[in-house]
Amino acid sequence: MTLRLADMTELLADKVQAELVGDPELLIERLSTLEAAGPNDLAFLSHPKYLSQLAQSAAGCVIVAPSAREAALKRGSCLVVDDPYYYFALVTQLWKRKHFPGAALAVHPGAFIDPAATIGPNVSIGAFACIAAGAVIGEGARIAEHCVIGANAIIGANSRLSARVTVADGCRIGERCIIHPGAVIGADGFGFAPHDGQWVKIEQLGAVQIGNDVEIGANTCIDRGALQDTVIEDGVKLDNLVQIAHNVRVGKHSAMAGCAGVAGSATIGANCTVGGGAIVLGHLRLADGVHVSAASIVTRSLLKPGHYTGLFPIDDNAAWEKNAATLKQLHTLRERLKQTEKTLLQLQGSLEEKP
Amino acid sequence: MTLRLADMTELLADKVQAELVGDPELLIERLSTLEAAGPNDLAFLSHPKYLSQLAQSAAGCVIVAPSAREAALKRGSCLVVDDPYYYFALVTQLWKRKHFPGAALAVHPGAFIDPAATIGPNVSIGAFACIAAGAVIGEGARIAEHCVIGANAIIGANSRLSARVTVADGCRIGERCIIHPGAVIGADGFGFAPHDGQWVKIEQLGAVQIGNDVEIGANTCIDRGALQDTVIEDGVKLDNLVQIAHNVRVGKHSAMAGCAGVAGSATIGANCTVGGGAIVLGHLRLADGVHVSAASIVTRSLLKPGHYTGLFPIDDNAAWEKNAATLKQLHTLRERLKQTEKTLLQLQGSLEEKP
Amino acid sequence: MTLRLADMTELLADKVQAELVGDPELLIERLSTLEAAGPNDLAFLSHPKYLSQLAQSAAGCVIVAPSAREAALKRGSCLVVDDPYYYFALVTQLWKRKHFPGAALAVHPGAFIDPAATIGPNVSIGAFACIAAGAVIGEGARIAEHCVIGANAIIGANSRLSARVTVADGCRIGERCIIHPGAVIGADGFGFAPHDGQWVKIEQLGAVQIGNDVEIGANTCIDRGALQDTVIEDGVKLDNLVQIAHNVRVGKHSAMAGCAGVAGSATIGANCTVGGGAIVLGHLRLADGVHVSAASIVTRSLLKPGHYTGLFPIDDNAAWEKNAATLKQLHTLRERLKQTEKTLLQLQGSLEEKP
Repeated sequence: MTLRLADMTELLADKVQAELVGDPELLIERLSTLEAAGPNDLAFLSHPKYLSQLAQSAAGCVIVAPSAREAALKRGSCLVVDDPYYYFALVTQLWKRKHFPGAALAVHPGAFIDPAATIGPNVSIGAFACIAAGAVIGEGARIAEHCVIGANAIIGANSRLSARVTVADGCRIGERCIIHPGAVIGADGFGFAPHDGQWVKIEQLGAVQIGNDVEIGANTCIDRGALQDTVIEDGVKLDNLVQIAHNVRVGKHSAMAGCAGVAGSATIGANCTVGGGAIVLGHLRLADGVHVSAASIVTRSLLKPGHYTGLFPIDDNAAWEKNAATLKQLHTLRERLKQTEKTLLQLQGSLEEKP
Repeated sequence: MTLRLADMTELLADKVQAELVGDPELLIERLSTLEAAGPNDLAFLSHPKYLSQLAQSAAGCVIVAPSAREAALKRGSCLVVDDPYYYFALVTQLWKRKHFPGAALAVHPGAFIDPAATIGPNVSIGAFACIAAGAVIGEGARIAEHCVIGANAIIGANSRLSARVTVADGCRIGERCIIHPGAVIGADGFGFAPHDGQWVKIEQLGAVQIGNDVEIGANTCIDRGALQDTVIEDGVKLDNLVQIAHNVRVGKHSAMAGCAGVAGSATIGANCTVGGGAIVLGHLRLADGVHVSAASIVTRSLLKPGHYTGLFPIDDNAAWEKNAATLKQLHTLRERLKQTEKTLLQLQGSLEEKP
Repeated sequence: MTLRLADMTELLADKVQAELVGDPELLIERLSTLEAAGPNDLAFLSHPKYLSQLAQSAAGCVIVAPSAREAALKRGSCLVVDDPYYYFALVTQLWKRKHFPGAALAVHPGAFIDPAATIGPNVSIGAFACIAAGAVIGEGARIAEHCVIGANAIIGANSRLSARVTVADGCRIGERCIIHPGAVIGADGFGFAPHDGQWVKIEQLGAVQIGNDVEIGANTCIDRGALQDTVIEDGVKLDNLVQIAHNVRVGKHSAMAGCAGVAGSATIGANCTVGGGAIVLGHLRLADGVHVSAASIVTRSLLKPGHYTGLFPIDDNAAWEKNAATLKQLHTLRERLKQTEKTLLQLQGSLEEKP
């Protein structure tokens, strides 16, 4: 697996014009970090804080920003671009296309495709996949082994479903989406009416709508809506083991890290980020550009863009125990402080009155 | 998809007698929310706080409680029942039965059924499902595509397993249960004996027993017991991505929201609720009627019914940083306050002694 | 299912020499807890705090430590060993081997095995499993129904994959590993470069390397690395629904309970434990022997072994509300206390100056 440096810059030139300082004939054998890179590796410097690593890197070539140009030249070959991390992302895509083209386009004879399903051109369907009646698989889509596509579900053009993805009846996936193994799109939302000490099921009659260019992680669940649909807008990225409850709406280009959860009917704006393990409670609204730290619990709507956090700082266990015990008396402490302030003020007052 | 209003009330009359005020011939085309409903939609008002939405709703008919009868009549057609949310749940069930009857009952030729399995009458088994020797599938059960039912496992009558559910060897599912895609019933519990700096596996010899009318969410895991069984009692509802460890017992009609977790040998009473992302630590006991807020960590047994919470309130990040930093000195602050109170008291005392 | 006591001790004698006090002919019918055990059951006493249960136990025989020998003899038959819990673990393994030997070794005709895959001797492959080109299945490995093994993936000798496990292209599993249903090894890590308000995918070119004797829980996800591999070292035990992000390294014999998550590029040392629902943020380092309590969020590297905790103590909801509200003013309270202390000191000073 090699890639000639000059070929690489040419192939990406329609997206980014890079200035190549060094030997265009260099054969890149690997993409690597500054630290691990060898003489046939391409590395990148995305943040000034790693400048110290630059000088010591043995990389054959380093992608740098204009601000690091001088430092990079002292070391050796470099590619100068406005946004090295973005350029690096493009290089990984090029590398993957060239070296891991994926399985040949074919419909495996062991798949089960209902005669009433519509399969577009240039589609790949893996062994033991099941495509139900009325389902539509768009042009160029790749459905891996063991996927289950329900009745009347729609998979948009050029989307890629990894092994063991479930898309339930009537759910729609946009174009160029990537869905990782074990994801479940369109299971029933969690809706019950309490009655006589028991729970009566509210059948979930909505579906899930997923926009274009969405990526969904392994074993992530997106529930179908109760009456209307659950909606994931274009460009959203969800990591693994994320839970999206019924009737949630996630705005364009928002991203959520692993184990995050969003409860029913919450609305997340565009360009938000939700950290790993964070939870957004039901029926809340997050404005565009809200960033929630990992493991923070959103208990009220956040209507202004900004960075929000709520987590107990970790400490050695003994210190935590003392502070946590005191925390349970915090309101009382505040009342005591208030009283102390008042007493002190009275005392001062009475002293001043004295001759 | 339509449903005549009079047919609907008649079909539900054995469960609830509704008073219909309006045209019994109205053809309902959709179930909807008050806000989104149109002239052929049926909506419901479950809580007085939505009364303001009632007047403006364009719904063809609204399900209301007796207390909202007058307000509803001003608007137009309504159905008056004691518990509108319960009635609405029954309507969704009727709607689903009528309009989405599910796949025809059939055993797919591509399923693999061991000759030593017992398949009841009127059973449906999907493509590529695997039913092992000694397994029993009860009358009217539906086993969707890709389910794996282990040796000697029992699936009760009329239970429905969605695609890709695993029920491991010897586990028992009751009647009328619903299990969503990717759920794993009966994987090994997490049990190891530490020995010489390594972990020695304790084979998990128990199984999982699940009662009747239990619903289990997508990708939820319920581990088999170490020696005795893990038990989920009748009517329990578990959302997606919930973790139930070995030898847990969950009492009747308790419900847990997405991403909740219960550690080994904990006992949850009946009619409890556990919020999303909440965790119950091992060997604890929750009384009947305990309600744990989302994301709260139960670190001690809760022996009285009630509502319990423990989570760090979210704030803008800068404010959180200040408060979190101070929290690490909270115990010290308390000691300082105590000292200040004492000093102040001494000072007061000495002043009083003065002539 | 029975096991003669004398046969049992003999079969385990190469690992542990147990002193048997009682009838070697006793037929054990069940392994049990002290509380639930009957006259043909074998139970164990692993901790002195359960000594009170010992006297009342009806167990046919009890495994005890030398320190409990005297108390055990008063009750009846016992097996004396240095580490009863370890011995009990060995007994469960023996019991499982004897009574639940697992499916016969066979390659199911309904599996799909690419002709370019390498299948070792004595391998078992279940119905509908898919083994891709270049994959290698080591001697004695058991691949259950519905597993998907990607191109060039390697499964080490005697490893056991339960139903529905995915091992993606190029990932390597060591020997004697146990992987539970629904686990996903080698999905893409969550890597994107922000560009013009959108996310640009960074293709994940690394893989996952898993050592020997690793156990991985149901629906747990371990992502492939971005450039280098994600690494799970020998003897690691991961519970269900755990998320391991790209380029994490987990050191030997560390264990993580259910719903734990480790963000990208974090390094966990050897012999660590991470409690259920705990989260380790990205790029952090945990020393060997670090123990993180359940639900605690690791926000900084923990470079010393020890026990760390950070979680909000649970309380009844009303008390929590008061304390949580005060917590949002904690920094202000501290400033007020500081001011009060200062004022009091000044007052004391001024009083002492007075005659």
